[in-house]
Amino acid sequence: MTKPKVAVVGYGVIGQRLADGVARQKDMELIGIADVAPTLALRALAERGMPYKLYCASSDNASGFKAAGIPVEGKIDQLLDKVDIVLDATSAGVGMKNKQTYMKKGIKAIFQGGEKNDVADVFFHGYANYEKGVGKNYLKLTSCNTTGLIRAVDCLDRLYGIERVAITIIRRVADPGDINRGLVDVALVEPIPNHQAVDLMHIMPHIDATGLLVHLPITHGHIITVIATPKKELTKEQAIEAFNSHPRIRVVKIADGFNSNTAMFRYARDLGNPRGDMYEIAVFEETIGFSGKDIIFAINIPQEAVVIPETMDAIRAALEMQKTRDEAVALTNEYLGMK
Amino acid sequence: MTKPKVAVVGYGVIGQRLADGVARQKDMELIGIADVAPTLALRALAERGMPYKLYCASSDNASGFKAAGIPVEGKIDQLLDKVDIVLDATSAGVGMKNKQTYMKKGIKAIFQGGEKNDVADVFFHGYANYEKGVGKNYLKLTSCNTTGLIRAVDCLDRLYGIERVAITIIRRVADPGDINRGLVDVALVEPIPNHQAVDLMHIMPHIDATGLLVHLPITHGHIITVIATPKKELTKEQAIEAFNSHPRIRVVKIADGFNSNTAMFRYARDLGNPRGDMYEIAVFEETIGFSGKDIIFAINIPQEAVVIPETMDAIRAALEMQKTRDEAVALTNEYLGMK
Amino acid sequence: MTKPKVAVVGYGVIGQRLADGVARQKDMELIGIADVAPTLALRALAERGMPYKLYCASSDNASGFKAAGIPVEGKIDQLLDKVDIVLDATSAGVGMKNKQTYMKKGIKAIFQGGEKNDVADVFFHGYANYEKGVGKNYLKLTSCNTTGLIRAVDCLDRLYGIERVAITIIRRVADPGDINRGLVDVALVEPIPNHQAVDLMHIMPHIDATGLLVHLPITHGHIITVIATPKKELTKEQAIEAFNSHPRIRVVKIADGFNSNTAMFRYARDLGNPRGDMYEIAVFEETIGFSGKDIIFAINIPQEAVVIPETMDAIRAALEMQKTRDEAVALTNEYLGMK
Amino acid sequence: MTKPKVAVVGYGVIGQRLADGVARQKDMELIGIADVAPTLALRALAERGMPYKLYCASSDNASGFKAAGIPVEGKIDQLLDKVDIVLDATSAGVGMKNKQTYMKKGIKAIFQGGEKNDVADVFFHGYANYEKGVGKNYLKLTSCNTTGLIRAVDCLDRLYGIERVAITIIRRVADPGDINRGLVDVALVEPIPNHQAVDLMHIMPHIDATGLLVHLPITHGHIITVIATPKKELTKEQAIEAFNSHPRIRVVKIADGFNSNTAMFRYARDLGNPRGDMYEIAVFEETIGFSGKDIIFAINIPQEAVVIPETMDAIRAALEMQKTRDEAVALTNEYLGMK
Repeated sequence: MTKPKVAVVGYGVIGQRLADGVARQKDMELIGIADVAPTLALRALAERGMPYKLYCASSDNASGFKAAGIPVEGKIDQLLDKVDIVLDATSAGVGMKNKQTYMKKGIKAIFQGGEKNDVADVFFHGYANYEKGVGKNYLKLTSCNTTGLIRAVDCLDRLYGIERVAITIIRRVADPGDINRGLVDVALVEPIPNHQAVDLMHIMPHIDATGLLVHLPITHGHIITVIATPKKELTKEQAIEAFNSHPRIRVVKIADGFNSNTAMFRYARDLGNPRGDMYEIAVFEETIGFSGKDIIFAINIPQEAVVIPETMDAIRAALEMQKTRDEAVALTNEYLGMK
Repeated sequence: MTKPKVAVVGYGVIGQRLADGVARQKDMELIGIADVAPTLALRALAERGMPYKLYCASSDNASGFKAAGIPVEGKIDQLLDKVDIVLDATSAGVGMKNKQTYMKKGIKAIFQGGEKNDVADVFFHGYANYEKGVGKNYLKLTSCNTTGLIRAVDCLDRLYGIERVAITIIRRVADPGDINRGLVDVALVEPIPNHQAVDLMHIMPHIDATGLLVHLPITHGHIITVIATPKKELTKEQAIEAFNSHPRIRVVKIADGFNSNTAMFRYARDLGNPRGDMYEIAVFEETIGFSGKDIIFAINIPQEAVVIPETMDAIRAALEMQKTRDEAVALTNEYLGMK
Repeated sequence: MTKPKVAVVGYGVIGQRLADGVARQKDMELIGIADVAPTLALRALAERGMPYKLYCASSDNASGFKAAGIPVEGKIDQLLDKVDIVLDATSAGVGMKNKQTYMKKGIKAIFQGGEKNDVADVFFHGYANYEKGVGKNYLKLTSCNTTGLIRAVDCLDRLYGIERVAITIIRRVADPGDINRGLVDVALVEPIPNHQAVDLMHIMPHIDATGLLVHLPITHGHIITVIATPKKELTKEQAIEAFNSHPRIRVVKIADGFNSNTAMFRYARDLGNPRGDMYEIAVFEETIGFSGKDIIFAINIPQEAVVIPETMDAIRAALEMQKTRDEAVALTNEYLGMK
Repeated sequence: MTKPKVAVVGYGVIGQRLADGVARQKDMELIGIADVAPTLALRALAERGMPYKLYCASSDNASGFKAAGIPVEGKIDQLLDKVDIVLDATSAGVGMKNKQTYMKKGIKAIFQGGEKNDVADVFFHGYANYEKGVGKNYLKLTSCNTTGLIRAVDCLDRLYGIERVAITIIRRVADPGDINRGLVDVALVEPIPNHQAVDLMHIMPHIDATGLLVHLPITHGHIITVIATPKKELTKEQAIEAFNSHPRIRVVKIADGFNSNTAMFRYARDLGNPRGDMYEIAVFEETIGFSGKDIIFAINIPQEAVVIPETMDAIRAALEMQKTRDEAVALTNEYLGMK
């Protein structure tokens, strides 16, 4: 049986990690990546000897790659002709335009959270609504915060039922090294509700969700505090057990030194993970508590890598590689090393 | 009738503002301040021509003041002999030691939030439990976050009844210019519950409160998101009206540019407030929303000045200047210019 | 004798402070200010009771002011008809367009550092080239860093002669509360030479200047390290004496607690200065040293207010209020309270 | 021939990287590491399956490791008995105490920059004074900033002669995830001269060096601006060529996106380097310029990893593995992948 062929279009923060993620899926084949300009990410790829083949996404910039000494395999058209599915990780809004090309070529595509929902047939989360994506042509992933949040809420929902969720998102305002965004000594408040709560309700319509979001001058991961109303009462121990048994959630202890978003990043670096990335969200064990019967907890969202597993799931769904969530996520988890 | 005589011991971030606050109370007399070393705050006071008289709190350091060109009126003992009440704004833990002296001298004292509760006869908040402080010898104020939080919760509680509160505190990790504390690119998570929730329950024992706290690299004010369960249902408009009618709460709009803790600080600077201080907490209007019947909102706590009004209230209570909350806070508010 | 009539166009970070500065000059009259939208700065002005009259700079936005409850005196045209000179503190580039109006009206104007040099007849610094501005119609001020840097270099140059300067600017990336700029955990390096060195050579053509600039995540003032080659050798004591005798320079000691840009800001707040502003630059005494015969030192530039005094000087020059630098700066200094 | 046996004592930020560095030297053998408590670094090592053997450096804490599920091979005594040399990467001051043990055991040791100079027989830099370390028992490395600075200065010195150096260090105040240090919105100024300049003169006594240091709220690398007086005049192209031919220096272009300390970190992550580390310092090409005949440039110091190569050199020197600098650094560079 031939493996599905995958392209990654847009080799930025997310695109790089998608390419790595596909390369680790033993039942998929990464044909190549496409981008428009010789970014640092592509210079690094060249210095590593071009483990992935690069296709030029803009005729104007082939010269740019050449000048930068970055080998180009061909044009994006040639790449698209070879693949079954595209992971589009371009800047927000570009995916919508690219979709026309994908449709003409008759290839499926998976878009990231920055695109509008109507770019896709289904708004997708590997754990929460896998079956809705099966066989679909165009899927859109939830954003980083929503992806991580849904992991935790879905985990409890399947065991105890969740009726209502209210969250506070402490949002990193920029990725490491991003010089185009930033805040200094400012906590920037957004109106209620944040889009993540709205998106959660889109994916999990049986839950009433809302919440606030504050942008903060940090780069290594978001922190979300969650207050959730369960249908069945649960204890702290049960919550820990539920989270612990989820392959994409780590339960960590503040007392052990896992006391911040950046401690998680540092730990991922020390684990030897490529780029110091972590696919798992973390639940800080000592933050689990109760207000009445509502459960409270805080999670860490490693924004650079958290959506990679669910995007792998999306490929599986779109290409009908697995029919059920459990089969699909098991393979994604295995190949990405999440136990 | 002679005015009550007040001393401020400890002229740091809080002490300076307490001195200013007392100086603005037309029915009190600031006799002097005391400190141990020629800090920048005291150098600034000297450059301003010593509007307050300084008493040396440590025999060793009189020479320090002299070398710095800061005029000293006498020793702290002399100051204490002249006053009816002391506002102790020394570093956490020092107040407890100082209390022995105050007891010996037979003078009343008000301590700040950093001291342990047992330093005082009553844990005090001007709006929430004024009457408990009337005539007491030793009062301890709530900390900055708790003071501001209780203002907002008490405001709703008196009108609609509040049963339960869960909060997320986005805490400034250091005051402006503090080089002894700080975080860079870190969101530091604390175990549940934060002391502010516990303290709120101490002051308002009919409320079930809990919450999380995350330290962030900001200096100009805390942000607290609150989810509160009211006994009587209320609308957003009612909440706005309640907050708006509270002299120590400002309702501000994100759409108008009041979008962050630092926007509030900047506004206070532009108002011409001394030190760019603001006594009022702010409620961001667009953050008011509902999760079920629970009300949600976010407030800004200007940590440097927020406790000043409630400390003025405490003087009024301890010295029995006014017997009721309404009389007391009205005078404090008038003298501090809060309408 | 009637006082010269002054308008301030643009009431942002600089414009507010220019208005305050003019209001403090006893020999000038501030007729009014103009702006286009109800910013926080104008809301604060309204809350203060409109000490300055506001003229609407955009017909479209009069309704905006009205909706915000900010009284408007009239249109900018009416303001310009009443004045002898405009201080244009609009966003970079707008001043150039406004100049057409000023020319038509036959009024003089002073532009800030963000405009291109050719907006003006002369690129001006009150201390370094006052006489060049006398009687001119259009003057452009140096930017905040250049203004402060030139103060220090000119101070030494007049006494010891300075041949060569190399600087490193540690630049605050945003003003307090600015949410449109920012860096998180990044030191952003600019190519050599920085414009400040180039501008210094423009104002002081006998000096060879160059240097580097790094943007950092701070808001309360720039730090510049200077290495300068004097013609006549000087000692540390002589340098301190020179700086100390300059009314717009403070010599401060790290050992006293003046150890950072933010310590200077905090001190200015504690001094009771409006908005916590400081007009003076600071030289950190313990940073004065030598490399060979070259003198090294570090200065603090309070970016929000540092250009105000030199802009007052510029009014004096343009309107020929004083013919010489010494007369002019003496009056500016007196009215602004710099001894 | 048996390979020299090496231990790493202290498995913190530096110790981890020293262990990795030794493990990559094909002509050395890493026997084990020692530490006192189950830090995140050791938890990460355990999660990776303990590629290095851990010895307990404190009898009290063996239980701590056990509780944390971290396998312990034995006590530090057992480790020391097996090795020829120790890399001591404990906290500043501890190395001095440990030295007594190393002396008793008759094993050599290499200390890091935090220790006092008199802990060692020689203050060492692999490129600048390798020969002084040959055969010595106790070597102390230069600190991260000094190590990187000397690389650049030594590189030019050997070709053009350097007489005088003045530097400005923009110092990261904390490592990523460090919650015990930090500054928020502060640029903290140190007196002249910084210790790095003093240390440079210790290693390169023919150079007159001084400079300033400012602590800034960043974590991903220091920036140093250097102004150096060469004996022979050199051009920008010659400087670039000199730096480019140095295996431990990268010349990077701001125009290519290498515009900050954090861009360098991000690039190292994208290169797939373990922990996102970089051994090389970077010279920003567009910062190279001249003030008179003095050369100016800015370098990036990746503080977490920069000292690793020179520490490997130190092992080579102490154990007389290579007699000359050129032989030694060539092997270190080859094994660490620096071309």
